[in-house]
Amino acid sequence: MKKLLFLSALLLMSAVTFAQQALWGGAPVVSPEIHDDNTVTFRLKDPKAVKVQVTGDFLPTQKMKTPFGEFDAPGVADLKEGKDGVWEFTTPEPLAPELYSYSFIVDGLKTMDPSNVYMIRDVATVTNVFIIGGGRADLYKVNDVPHGTVARMWYNSPTLGMERRITVYTPAGYETSGKRYPVFYLLHGMGGDEEAWIALGRTSQILDNLIAQGKAEPMIVVMTNGNASQEAAPGETHFGLTPPNMNLPQTMEGTFETAFPDVVKFIDKTFRTKANKKNRAIAGLSMGGYHSLHISKQYPDMFNYVGLFSAAIMPDAKVKSPIYEDFDKKLATQFAKKPALYWIGIGKTDFLYKANEDFRKMLDEKGYKYTYYETGEGHIWKNWRIYLTEFAPLLFK
Amino acid sequence: MKKLLFLSALLLMSAVTFAQQALWGGAPVVSPEIHDDNTVTFRLKDPKAVKVQVTGDFLPTQKMKTPFGEFDAPGVADLKEGKDGVWEFTTPEPLAPELYSYSFIVDGLKTMDPSNVYMIRDVATVTNVFIIGGGRADLYKVNDVPHGTVARMWYNSPTLGMERRITVYTPAGYETSGKRYPVFYLLHGMGGDEEAWIALGRTSQILDNLIAQGKAEPMIVVMTNGNASQEAAPGETHFGLTPPNMNLPQTMEGTFETAFPDVVKFIDKTFRTKANKKNRAIAGLSMGGYHSLHISKQYPDMFNYVGLFSAAIMPDAKVKSPIYEDFDKKLATQFAKKPALYWIGIGKTDFLYKANEDFRKMLDEKGYKYTYYETGEGHIWKNWRIYLTEFAPLLFK
Repeated sequence: MKKLLFLSALLLMSAVTFAQQALWGGAPVVSPEIHDDNTVTFRLKDPKAVKVQVTGDFLPTQKMKTPFGEFDAPGVADLKEGKDGVWEFTTPEPLAPELYSYSFIVDGLKTMDPSNVYMIRDVATVTNVFIIGGGRADLYKVNDVPHGTVARMWYNSPTLGMERRITVYTPAGYETSGKRYPVFYLLHGMGGDEEAWIALGRTSQILDNLIAQGKAEPMIVVMTNGNASQEAAPGETHFGLTPPNMNLPQTMEGTFETAFPDVVKFIDKTFRTKANKKNRAIAGLSMGGYHSLHISKQYPDMFNYVGLFSAAIMPDAKVKSPIYEDFDKKLATQFAKKPALYWIGIGKTDFLYKANEDFRKMLDEKGYKYTYYETGEGHIWKNWRIYLTEFAPLLFK
Repeated sequence: MKKLLFLSALLLMSAVTFAQQALWGGAPVVSPEIHDDNTVTFRLKDPKAVKVQVTGDFLPTQKMKTPFGEFDAPGVADLKEGKDGVWEFTTPEPLAPELYSYSFIVDGLKTMDPSNVYMIRDVATVTNVFIIGGGRADLYKVNDVPHGTVARMWYNSPTLGMERRITVYTPAGYETSGKRYPVFYLLHGMGGDEEAWIALGRTSQILDNLIAQGKAEPMIVVMTNGNASQEAAPGETHFGLTPPNMNLPQTMEGTFETAFPDVVKFIDKTFRTKANKKNRAIAGLSMGGYHSLHISKQYPDMFNYVGLFSAAIMPDAKVKSPIYEDFDKKLATQFAKKPALYWIGIGKTDFLYKANEDFRKMLDEKGYKYTYYETGEGHIWKNWRIYLTEFAPLLFK
């Protein structure tokens, strides 16, 4: 029987892998290389390039002018050409623990690092990523701890008349414990979708790690799609692999908030939840913070924990929706019911800082209790990951 | 209250999105553009480039010599520079319906298409993808049909002494039907992992569509990691975001096959399965076909349906494992029990064609019944997707 195959299957398989690698331009250099002292070297083999740069959030920010004002943008650094056409840049200082995004710019064209297969899509752009471990950033890593399950599924929203995609994290042990769990609804920002918190947000890693350390209660985390006109993330709908549509008509005009009870109903029907206000939290970043604010006051008996991460606060004056009517009265009702936690986090340089400051002043004047957490920097994922690691341990205790 | 926010939050959010887009090099051209006649135009804006090419499996293959022999490799085509530094290539002929992979080569450097956010990692390389619809390829698209759930989870393998990651597809309605379902175990090839069949394999789309059309029974599909030394796909382990390790010591030497009952036990404990031979199938591509062959004969009371897709057949003569002992006797036992389906699919130019031909001859000589399905071309994902669309409808009927 052994004569059936004259050549070693193993060798042949390796050969094919080799061939694919060679063809598709497998990586001839190591990049990024994270050194023991947490400096990082970026490398690109490209003998024909005239100028190679790297841009990313590991570099000091630079001011960028836009028609809408000045924003902090990631800096740019030049790589130097060495022998064999290998370009290199090493950070002058060790990098602080963090998850970083970067891209190369070769003669003006943004490219992915061909040596790094780890990329994350955020809104309509894709960047390479790497992690410097240590401190809080260890929560962003996959560690040797029990892991929860991440399910991509679909639910029916009768209010929207639509099947919609949703991402659900269940904690380690959920499948066999027979227990019921509290639920944390976690909402993304404008242009994001039901993949955002799992991708750059590192939600499953953060929850796995916080729960394993005994710092957070085992909980279900539900990540919705906050664009009420969109059934799913780009590429996951019957529109096919078309470019992400940035024209989102139903984002901050009340439709998503109106339909939100459909989500809660689906989750309570489908998972072993503790289906009551005491065991429900809602939080979101940017537009998701806005959604969390308006949903939690619209349905004051639904959520006991509310988190506003770099939140937009008030709707555009031109937007009309029953959701935004009687703002003061609804907020009064919500706070009269004494939520267990009303948490506001924002970065010092966020363009929404002033709006949040005004909102806090109003809460102070009314005597509404909230917890405030201020960080440096602005409207960036680094802050949203920090807020998640701070907020989740406060829930359901 | 409306005075709290002087600027429109909506406008500000859009501005940030705009700024990010501009910074990260958002796409100034449309690429790929699929025309009504299914010709496709690729575009890259790069005024400084000297030569821009596209390589991918939509182009006629070319012969590539390697130390291990000659292989078919995707072809390469030149883009032409037009005005404003926009390079362009349009396929001379319409493309047949299919899911295609491609990359650009700019002055010799492989790059992703910056206009296309859809990329799939296969083994250690990442390529852009697009789909030409029609015919069988419509099964690879997300269509407006009920969608199943895809869960990434972890199970404990006592035999391997390891927690291992696994991908599980449950059909639409699973969560609330209360019903029990048959289970199809679907295994990847060498260098692949528990993401392979969901990514380039399009398993969830194919099953959603076949089930919606009434062509396949609703079933659970379980996608394991076939590298017994590896706990999970690259980036999903505590080794962090390190380059995919191609040195996989435990792939085709019996360890994975020995530990396979751990997977079945976990699935039967965790999901509502029909936990018997009649309702179990196993199939795999290349190394996964080899695994399916050896697992199904090692445990002859476990699987009623067996699929070998471009399978490696026999182990390397030097490999010793109880799994590979008494090959003839075990196969005789398996076929004496009359499996409902023993299915072999391979491409005419596959480097494993001869080994499969010899294997079929042996089956013929012994009078063991099997179904044979031959396609053109070789050891490629196009064929494995075809085999899945042919095999799945034959199960559990």
